[in-house]
Amino acid sequence: MKDSPGKPTAVVLLSGGLDSATAAAWALARGERLAALSIDYGQRHRVELEAAREVAAGLGISDHIIMPIDLAAFGGGPLVDHTQAVPKDRSDAAIANGIPVTYVPARNTVFLALALALAETRGASRLVLGVNAVDYSGYPDCRPEFLEAFEQLANLATKAGVEGSRFELLAPLVSLTKAAIIQTGIDLGVDYGLTTSCYDPEPDGRPCGGCDSCRIRAAGFAAAGTPDPRLARFAGATEDSARANR
Amino acid sequence: MKDSPGKPTAVVLLSGGLDSATAAAWALARGERLAALSIDYGQRHRVELEAAREVAAGLGISDHIIMPIDLAAFGGGPLVDHTQAVPKDRSDAAIANGIPVTYVPARNTVFLALALALAETRGASRLVLGVNAVDYSGYPDCRPEFLEAFEQLANLATKAGVEGSRFELLAPLVSLTKAAIIQTGIDLGVDYGLTTSCYDPEPDGRPCGGCDSCRIRAAGFAAAGTPDPRLARFAGATEDSARANR
Repeated sequence: MKDSPGKPTAVVLLSGGLDSATAAAWALARGERLAALSIDYGQRHRVELEAAREVAAGLGISDHIIMPIDLAAFGGGPLVDHTQAVPKDRSDAAIANGIPVTYVPARNTVFLALALALAETRGASRLVLGVNAVDYSGYPDCRPEFLEAFEQLANLATKAGVEGSRFELLAPLVSLTKAAIIQTGIDLGVDYGLTTSCYDPEPDGRPCGGCDSCRIRAAGFAAAGTPDPRLARFAGATEDSARANR
Repeated sequence: MKDSPGKPTAVVLLSGGLDSATAAAWALARGERLAALSIDYGQRHRVELEAAREVAAGLGISDHIIMPIDLAAFGGGPLVDHTQAVPKDRSDAAIANGIPVTYVPARNTVFLALALALAETRGASRLVLGVNAVDYSGYPDCRPEFLEAFEQLANLATKAGVEGSRFELLAPLVSLTKAAIIQTGIDLGVDYGLTTSCYDPEPDGRPCGGCDSCRIRAAGFAAAGTPDPRLARFAGATEDSARANR
């Protein structure tokens, strides 16, 4: 696909989490012009969408679409069915093995299909996503073979593909550890204080600390040898409010 | 995947058009228990959704979800951008060749991804769709190679696929002419008076008669040697209203 000035060259799926923020910063650093897509899919952790807005603004991405799609209408796991509990304080072995109940059926297929639709509409030829197959907590649609199959599909599915353009799926973090992702982001100047990873946050965005996603994030920052600025942000809020109450 | 009584065995994408109604009737005849999914994607021809409801009811499918998703938020062609005109009265050669402006970027990828999500949530292992590559008016995402790529993706994308089940994509009409589809549906007892194909219908559902889709439908009924009961339905309405006005 021919790039023309001003037109985005790539669409990034921005969740509000640290992986997609890092992937977006990586794409900007390699010269992509980004449009961002966030999906409001009825997730329990809607704080994510606020974080996605802040991340897009922080990275200077003005073409940011938040698309509502009610996956909860299908039923499914606790991320969309708010009457089910998010598992907390599971063992490291449990986190590392098997597909967790927080799996949302075909979620990344739906998200990538929407990103592809946006990319083709905008004339962009690359899809950027922050999926990761190392600390991926067992989701089938984060594996490299899934990503390759989607790239193939994209080139058969679209007018652009049929007319000889080539869609490319960029997943720069797919084989990095969480610690390496965090180091990459810090080098790129990502403000991780804007990002959220928790599956079950407080209404103000404060992470629960016990869900798989909080546990994986905490282990990543520990291994990277740097504090999580998201925690500092809420620690600060607590101190501020404690000071205000004095 | 093990079928258990009551649970749907397949999800059919039901558009309200004649192809998907025929595919659904075909699936029921081979013993599938169907859940139906219709997508309200901001299409100009919303009469389709009313038709989809009537078709589902007519076939006895009670598990019918209409999922709203605003593809118009991305921009795109005249099917979703209501300020653009639907082309009318194009030559047969123009209809048969090239990708028309009524192409909606990555539409079938998005629809199939949603059908896959619903199927996995319901525990169904087959996806049924009425796509057709003969009178397909040039859409890339109606071709057999696209369908094969999606089936492959589905088995990599899902927990069910990873755990050894096999998703199957059934497109029984893919290589039939429109006339053969209509003959199949008549043999199966499909009431085509409930179905709509027009891209630009009147608010009451009356087809425009000039868009590619009306033209392909009319040629199909002519070749099948049978009148289109949809036209009879509105012809009747006109006579009734003429009588009432006497």
